[in-house]
Amino acid sequence: MQNINTYVQEHKDRFINELIELLKIPSVSADTAYKDDVIKTAAEIQKSLLAAGCDHVEICETPGYPIVYGEKIIDTNLPTVLVYGHYDVQPPDPIDLWDSPPFEPVIKKTEIHPEGAIFARGSCDDKGQMYMHVKALEIMTKTGQLPCNVKFMIEGEEEVGSKSLGWFVERNQEKLANDVILISDTGMIAKDVPSITTGLRGLSYVEVEVTGPNRDLHSGLYGGAVANPINILTKMIASLHDEKNHITIPGFYDKVENLSNEERAEMAKAPFSLDAYKKSLDINAVYGEDGYTTNERNSIRPTLDVNGIWGGYTGEGAKTVIASKAYAKISMRLVPNQDWEEITQLFKKHFESIAPEAVTVKVTPHHGGQGYVTPIDNIGYQAASKAYQDSFGKTPIPQRSGGSIPIVSLFEKELKSKTILMGFGLDSDAIHSPNEHFGVWNYLKGIETIPLFYKYFTELSKS
Amino acid sequence: MQNINTYVQEHKDRFINELIELLKIPSVSADTAYKDDVIKTAAEIQKSLLAAGCDHVEICETPGYPIVYGEKIIDTNLPTVLVYGHYDVQPPDPIDLWDSPPFEPVIKKTEIHPEGAIFARGSCDDKGQMYMHVKALEIMTKTGQLPCNVKFMIEGEEEVGSKSLGWFVERNQEKLANDVILISDTGMIAKDVPSITTGLRGLSYVEVEVTGPNRDLHSGLYGGAVANPINILTKMIASLHDEKNHITIPGFYDKVENLSNEERAEMAKAPFSLDAYKKSLDINAVYGEDGYTTNERNSIRPTLDVNGIWGGYTGEGAKTVIASKAYAKISMRLVPNQDWEEITQLFKKHFESIAPEAVTVKVTPHHGGQGYVTPIDNIGYQAASKAYQDSFGKTPIPQRSGGSIPIVSLFEKELKSKTILMGFGLDSDAIHSPNEHFGVWNYLKGIETIPLFYKYFTELSKS
Repeated sequence: MQNINTYVQEHKDRFINELIELLKIPSVSADTAYKDDVIKTAAEIQKSLLAAGCDHVEICETPGYPIVYGEKIIDTNLPTVLVYGHYDVQPPDPIDLWDSPPFEPVIKKTEIHPEGAIFARGSCDDKGQMYMHVKALEIMTKTGQLPCNVKFMIEGEEEVGSKSLGWFVERNQEKLANDVILISDTGMIAKDVPSITTGLRGLSYVEVEVTGPNRDLHSGLYGGAVANPINILTKMIASLHDEKNHITIPGFYDKVENLSNEERAEMAKAPFSLDAYKKSLDINAVYGEDGYTTNERNSIRPTLDVNGIWGGYTGEGAKTVIASKAYAKISMRLVPNQDWEEITQLFKKHFESIAPEAVTVKVTPHHGGQGYVTPIDNIGYQAASKAYQDSFGKTPIPQRSGGSIPIVSLFEKELKSKTILMGFGLDSDAIHSPNEHFGVWNYLKGIETIPLFYKYFTELSKS
Repeated sequence: MQNINTYVQEHKDRFINELIELLKIPSVSADTAYKDDVIKTAAEIQKSLLAAGCDHVEICETPGYPIVYGEKIIDTNLPTVLVYGHYDVQPPDPIDLWDSPPFEPVIKKTEIHPEGAIFARGSCDDKGQMYMHVKALEIMTKTGQLPCNVKFMIEGEEEVGSKSLGWFVERNQEKLANDVILISDTGMIAKDVPSITTGLRGLSYVEVEVTGPNRDLHSGLYGGAVANPINILTKMIASLHDEKNHITIPGFYDKVENLSNEERAEMAKAPFSLDAYKKSLDINAVYGEDGYTTNERNSIRPTLDVNGIWGGYTGEGAKTVIASKAYAKISMRLVPNQDWEEITQLFKKHFESIAPEAVTVKVTPHHGGQGYVTPIDNIGYQAASKAYQDSFGKTPIPQRSGGSIPIVSLFEKELKSKTILMGFGLDSDAIHSPNEHFGVWNYLKGIETIPLFYKYFTELSKS
């Protein structure tokens, strides 16, 4: 499909500028202060889908933020690809660690991205990767090469647990009917090592609150005699891992899928340098569960991380206070077969049970999702593999990701179709971190590769 | 001294209103945003000391906030009382837990204060208690009953460790020469149980920073494979106490003064209801070091409390991040014979030693001070005891306080004189907490009692 590459070359500046405009809107779904911007972003997505050639695009209201639905049906006898993505982004804080404002995109060259990378919150996760599909549609329609039907479902609550998506999918199964779901919200191993994500971890995200005395106390007058909620919280959290870094919640590992040595050996073939990994993070040593490699710890093993903690005086200087309350946000990454709602209950039960009598504990589940696996003999996977072979000249490596896209298992349940995760970002793109960026090369390579997926998927569907 | 009580009755409304005006100025020394207010407060203290009858008052510059010095010398052959107090206050946060704005004083009746209490940050600690001495001077001068010389030294950095006071005292030993130092910055057991604080705990206040990866990371992609600084910090802090709630820092207890059973029995005579204590704090159980009572845990035993902790995402909603850094403010209350600088070093050495290789740790000492004990055969103590007997009709109980006034031991070292701690606040006055208040009855009772101290101290000094 040579003329596709030609089209990309002729229009790449516009493709980049259109994405930059989209990145300027701070669509932070976690913070209601950005509500208007999130809604404004949905409207922009609608415009871009119409411009790309969709026959019909609508902004669908939900109990939360709207979902943008678009479609181009060329022949109901042909297969249908459903593209999923999200237009909301993670909160930008800590703001002061950004080298440039998170919502004022700039293109800068980096060691890994000599062609330049777009620095902005959402550049990779997921506005940039989602927009690749919009531009791929534009190319296929403008060059008369759209081989099948396409539907888009772009949501605005992915970063807060896709609260309304299940509600929407359940109510629109016919509208969303498809033969394969295509998502670009993951990464690949390296620019010269294309990979397709075949597994995702599930997630259980909770918030805990420990309450001691009914008011903040003077640490001199009460120190040593009253339970300090912060000290207690640290003790409780510390006890959630044993000395081998196993998670101590009773029943937590009961349903964990244990990979065979063969599977682990297969995984171990992926190129990985522990030294380069440590160097890229400026750490002297990695840290994790005994008996597993770094790549296993962050993909096939469940984990428990504190994502935020706060309590007492955190301002300038010193305050000798015993806080009345201490808080933490805790998330657990789950592997296939672990049920996130069951794990959430196990956590709640255990955490409440280890609280000393001197405090009261509240556990509030935030959200969660199930893990997921795509078999590599699935024709969607094979179409994607052929597409990468054409555009990268290499067979992509099937990869388990440590991340979670909770809705993938929901799609399988409600829409009875498999999801193909074609990610073009890199781990070093700092998604969810300050200075998130997305390589211009990766962005354009993604736009080139996606139409090839449509081509091969349509062909393989016929046979 | 009947006419003193008469004077107080005639002028009490003005005494209260003057204090209220002083409380309106937010002199928060811990936060540079309040710098101008802190300095403005010093100027107000100067005015009030002149109005109360000081011959000479000056605002003495220091490397930090100024110290207000005032004196009235009536006869160099007579003894001299040096009054110490502070005009700075604790930060008001958490603001939202105040029933009325912290710097808009209001008088409200409470169960313990049926005559009303002044609610405002600093009302008890220490503007209210310090101002009792200003009004007591006014009474003694206006009624011609000042029996000896008096000097005032009112500082503005007590809540941040009296950074500049040592500097000032060392350079002004002659100016500050005195026979006894009088401070009201402590509490008494109850309105009907007057007490004099004979012991104070020392303090070591440090801030710790744990650094893992060089940037915030996506908890899905890195979770389980990289040390999470928050998880590590909780493990490190939790390990600072053993299962008996003893502090685990090597050498921490080496110099701790162990009281005899007789002394502990004497202490135990102070009226105390554990049920009332728990009820006042809404807690089901107290919590502390094995083998000691609540009153011992917060007075004669050293402690370690986290005063603040923060790291990662603490905003609304959820963010699946592994933070690059986690922080905590930790203070240790020390007992007589423990040297705060030595303890600070022991903490630093130990905390750094327990950090896993996967993180780096920084320990920054904030400030500290030594513990202190006043013997009850000291004539200053006896004069105070007689004063309470006259005004309360009861002999005050000598009491060890869990709080710290680091500079008291400094005074003994530099000025060679003992300090008498006549406190009129109550533990329930919520100092350092939201809704700090000071009973109007306590305020006026203090103003009545202080002149009696001058009378008896002068008499006892002659004999």
